[in-house]
Amino acid sequence: MAANTNGAPPLAVSLGDPAGVGPELFAQAWADRHEAGLSPFFAVGGAEVLKAAARSRGFELPIARIASADEAAAVFGAALPVLGDEDTAAVFGQPDRNGAALALHSLTRATQLALTGEAGAVVTGPIAKSKLAEIGFSQPGQTEFLADACGVAHGDAVMMLAGPNLRTVPLTVHVALSQVPALVTRALIERKARIVAQALRRDFGLSPARLAITGLNPHAGEDGRMGREEIETIAPAIAALSAEGLAVTGPHPADALFAAHERGKFDVALCMYHDQALVPIKTLDFDAGVNVTLGLPIVRTSPDHGTAFGIAGQAVASAGATIAALRMAGECAARRRLPETTA
Amino acid sequence: MAANTNGAPPLAVSLGDPAGVGPELFAQAWADRHEAGLSPFFAVGGAEVLKAAARSRGFELPIARIASADEAAAVFGAALPVLGDEDTAAVFGQPDRNGAALALHSLTRATQLALTGEAGAVVTGPIAKSKLAEIGFSQPGQTEFLADACGVAHGDAVMMLAGPNLRTVPLTVHVALSQVPALVTRALIERKARIVAQALRRDFGLSPARLAITGLNPHAGEDGRMGREEIETIAPAIAALSAEGLAVTGPHPADALFAAHERGKFDVALCMYHDQALVPIKTLDFDAGVNVTLGLPIVRTSPDHGTAFGIAGQAVASAGATIAALRMAGECAARRRLPETTA
Repeated sequence: MAANTNGAPPLAVSLGDPAGVGPELFAQAWADRHEAGLSPFFAVGGAEVLKAAARSRGFELPIARIASADEAAAVFGAALPVLGDEDTAAVFGQPDRNGAALALHSLTRATQLALTGEAGAVVTGPIAKSKLAEIGFSQPGQTEFLADACGVAHGDAVMMLAGPNLRTVPLTVHVALSQVPALVTRALIERKARIVAQALRRDFGLSPARLAITGLNPHAGEDGRMGREEIETIAPAIAALSAEGLAVTGPHPADALFAAHERGKFDVALCMYHDQALVPIKTLDFDAGVNVTLGLPIVRTSPDHGTAFGIAGQAVASAGATIAALRMAGECAARRRLPETTA
Repeated sequence: MAANTNGAPPLAVSLGDPAGVGPELFAQAWADRHEAGLSPFFAVGGAEVLKAAARSRGFELPIARIASADEAAAVFGAALPVLGDEDTAAVFGQPDRNGAALALHSLTRATQLALTGEAGAVVTGPIAKSKLAEIGFSQPGQTEFLADACGVAHGDAVMMLAGPNLRTVPLTVHVALSQVPALVTRALIERKARIVAQALRRDFGLSPARLAITGLNPHAGEDGRMGREEIETIAPAIAALSAEGLAVTGPHPADALFAAHERGKFDVALCMYHDQALVPIKTLDFDAGVNVTLGLPIVRTSPDHGTAFGIAGQAVASAGATIAALRMAGECAARRRLPETTA
């Protein structure tokens, strides 16, 4: 089944760390492109890395070197298009600086191509942050790198996790749990909720998107008996967002919100902290979760897993999340070609 | 299929609030006793409440009034045994003091019968805490009531949630999230882990029980980058427990621990706070979760849901969790009849 791309440009793939599972999973996704219904994509650099990664999974990967993104679609049916000659000789599971340099080049160029519109989206493979830091990568992660590249404040590049059954957004992300209560402010909830609602309308066609906002405390505080953040912060934010016309509900007790009979009642759950958002997603769909960055001028998705150095090159890593990330990027890119609907 | 009870006495059921779903779900469980493989149980009081509740689900419930617990097994095949004449006229969804009084009597007597050994276990229906408080119930919940009745410190009555796919124990329970980090101490982790390991051996036949202990912070702190509780508190507790011979692992990042391919690697997850333990259980198995109290001299289980006043008497509440609670209580009671194995 071919995807309907609405004439969107091909997707730019950044390899991720060559010693990790990124390249083998993009190679696998190309091999599965027909049954998975993927729209055309191309890799930035790493032709030899990709070929070796495919070989580790038992197949020869045909490569078509391209000089510009607009050549990708024509060759995609017969070969994986690769733009640029940058490459390295990676050893599975053993990241090094050459690999980090290739990963950074691939990410940088793929992002630029999305910004110029030559690529419809960027789909990023998993990187090794510690190796990248050694060669001067200063951001905490790829999301912040992309925000900087797009001229967007870090706080306005919003991470959404999307599985087949559920979408969640953590309000606070990589901070100690003890810091979370002070970071949960009305301003932050309102700002992120607006970004989420706008992005779900533009990129997912959900208008108005239904946001379920969780409480911070057990049972959403149970009327103040276990914490007052729901009363003093979260409920007022929800009231203000409702007054603006957003379709928001809450504060919801988080433990009940993700049950099968509740999941159909909202399009995305805005959760107060990392594990509240990630536990339900990974519990339900560990191998199919997509990390989407909302609030950017470009479409960016990523498989929601790391480099998995321990299993790279062993033909055991699941390509499910990578395929889901490619499919979602293609769908979002196609939707951006449509006239925007209003809420 | 009849359960193997090892000659254990019948299970004592406390009705829960008569205006809630407790009575109708116990009536339904009795109706389903054969296919569900339930061992004999009896209700304490509420014969008319149970009959009306069954009628709301479209069936006539035969009742056998019994004068003592040991009469229950003989009549259980033909009727639901009820011990005692206490009763009320409940209106579904409208709790009142008479109903609260019946619920409290039923809970008190059922607990006594388990303590004397006349009942093999107590299975408690959901109560309305606010109504019970009006008639002098001073504990925060049934678990604390049972601890007091058994002469056990509240902190040593440990709540475990058990679904078909997962068991979890929250280290801290009904406290504001902001209080959690200070409550996570080495002593508390060690104390609760020992109670859990002992109870899983005695009541569930798991020897040694494999405990997975979560981190408090995202990614279990990522080597101290997001909080130091894992390094300073949780890992030392795990080391001490390992040195005692317990089968403990961790600190595990909570977001990855409950994925399908991880769940088979442990028997129970000891989680740091309420939502970390309850989100995965309810996300996977909302209608089948059992609340088990570990660390008591008696066996106590309960369906892991509330009174559900909004749907009581409408024949829509699922009896899955009630049936699971009755089955688990029967299995634990039978296991206590066996000579105890050693770890």
